[in-house]
Amino acid sequence: MTDFGSKRTVGRVTLRWRSSSFRAGRDLLAVEEPLEIRLAGRRFTVTMRTPGHDDELVAGFLFSEGFVSAANEIGEIRRVRGSAGMPEANVVDVILRVPVETLRERLQRNFTMTSSCGLCGKTSIEALERRIAPLSHRDAWLEASVLTGLSAGMSAEQTIFADTGGVHAAALFDRSGSLRALREDIGRHNAVDKLVGWALRRNALPLSDSLVMVSGRLSFEIVQKVAAAGAPLVAAVSAPSSLAVELADQVGLTLVGFLRDGAFNLYTHPGRVT
Amino acid sequence: MTDFGSKRTVGRVTLRWRSSSFRAGRDLLAVEEPLEIRLAGRRFTVTMRTPGHDDELVAGFLFSEGFVSAANEIGEIRRVRGSAGMPEANVVDVILRVPVETLRERLQRNFTMTSSCGLCGKTSIEALERRIAPLSHRDAWLEASVLTGLSAGMSAEQTIFADTGGVHAAALFDRSGSLRALREDIGRHNAVDKLVGWALRRNALPLSDSLVMVSGRLSFEIVQKVAAAGAPLVAAVSAPSSLAVELADQVGLTLVGFLRDGAFNLYTHPGRVT
Repeated sequence: MTDFGSKRTVGRVTLRWRSSSFRAGRDLLAVEEPLEIRLAGRRFTVTMRTPGHDDELVAGFLFSEGFVSAANEIGEIRRVRGSAGMPEANVVDVILRVPVETLRERLQRNFTMTSSCGLCGKTSIEALERRIAPLSHRDAWLEASVLTGLSAGMSAEQTIFADTGGVHAAALFDRSGSLRALREDIGRHNAVDKLVGWALRRNALPLSDSLVMVSGRLSFEIVQKVAAAGAPLVAAVSAPSSLAVELADQVGLTLVGFLRDGAFNLYTHPGRVT
Repeated sequence: MTDFGSKRTVGRVTLRWRSSSFRAGRDLLAVEEPLEIRLAGRRFTVTMRTPGHDDELVAGFLFSEGFVSAANEIGEIRRVRGSAGMPEANVVDVILRVPVETLRERLQRNFTMTSSCGLCGKTSIEALERRIAPLSHRDAWLEASVLTGLSAGMSAEQTIFADTGGVHAAALFDRSGSLRALREDIGRHNAVDKLVGWALRRNALPLSDSLVMVSGRLSFEIVQKVAAAGAPLVAAVSAPSSLAVELADQVGLTLVGFLRDGAFNLYTHPGRVT
């Protein structure tokens, strides 16, 4: 699938209020557009996203939500004509190479997890633990000085953010702090799914030798996706939620918050950071 | 419905990396918990939210998504026992005073809007325009100096953010810049729904004499909720998305972005700001 050159930013004339007067200006806005994902022709889900790396977004979403477990289970991802009003650039159809019975089980499991009782903290965490390979090695893995150096590597690559100030970023780093990949999106979960999809399509999962850093806060959903991808550490510029910390604790993931200005807080499994 | 004293923050021991060494500390985290909303006993939706003002969240959600059109259409909101694992504090049942046929039409309309073709920008905007009372008066309404003064009034009330750094805020101000209400939540859309619910329960809708300010970015979804509540102006500390601006343009809403440090950008219908 090619990206059809979908625009990620769009210009817009604005009136700027500066020093008690208006003057005309021009801003770049991050593009927000829906993406409809179909499975074998049937509508499956719709997400609001910034166009670009749609194939990774779809692959990563299917993996981190538990619908596929390996790259070769995705047969094809292609653009298709949308329903009335939905442009082709915003509709993809996915052919899975998963036995019908297996897919049915996975759909059922996901439905149970995201339905009410499944979303209850404890139940959901238990369901995830059955699906996610536990992170068993929790000894020294990363130097603290590597963590404090990540922000610089990240911001250098946040090109849509630099233009618009309006998108989240998720980045994959190795243990030495080298950037492996970075993706941006108006949806934080989409940025992480794009990263996971990038790794899936390179057969680089699980991400046992990498850490994931996100530009904003850490919610339950983001920790869930990082844990499913098998990275041993997740870091965020801002605060984690209570349920994000609880999940990271349970699945053996090291959670780093408030990573900025040469400092950070370690919330779970601190033994990996020396 | 009482709030059962659900905790909005929770303490957590952390290791803090400062000046090249670790020391133990204690952080307050914003609580993230699921809330299951039932309609007449049947599961309707689940949202991850910060507990507190759940009744407003439910009322505001039902209004801004178009399921109820007035406060008296909500008969009762009460806590009920959850399914396995879901604590009572996280499950509410709503009795609506809406004729079955009317409710069926609204459910169908909402489903159409949020299903794939409905989420296409243009189609969705058209559907919203049919539901939302157009904002017809677009002449001088607010002084620029009122806008630049809002941030101070807002941050003084962001108590969960002050404790945790981990939540969004949405606030309602009148034309003179006086704060009418402020709500916080780990989900930006929840914070806005809580505000709308606050207004609905006081029979203060539409919000023709108020503006809504949010702490972060402006997405399509947030503009949709503000427009449904009838406020003529929405402001954000950070950037709007392309679709947020497009929707505001279409429904006659004044959209203000990057409102900080005494400056802001006007993206749509600037005539209201003088």
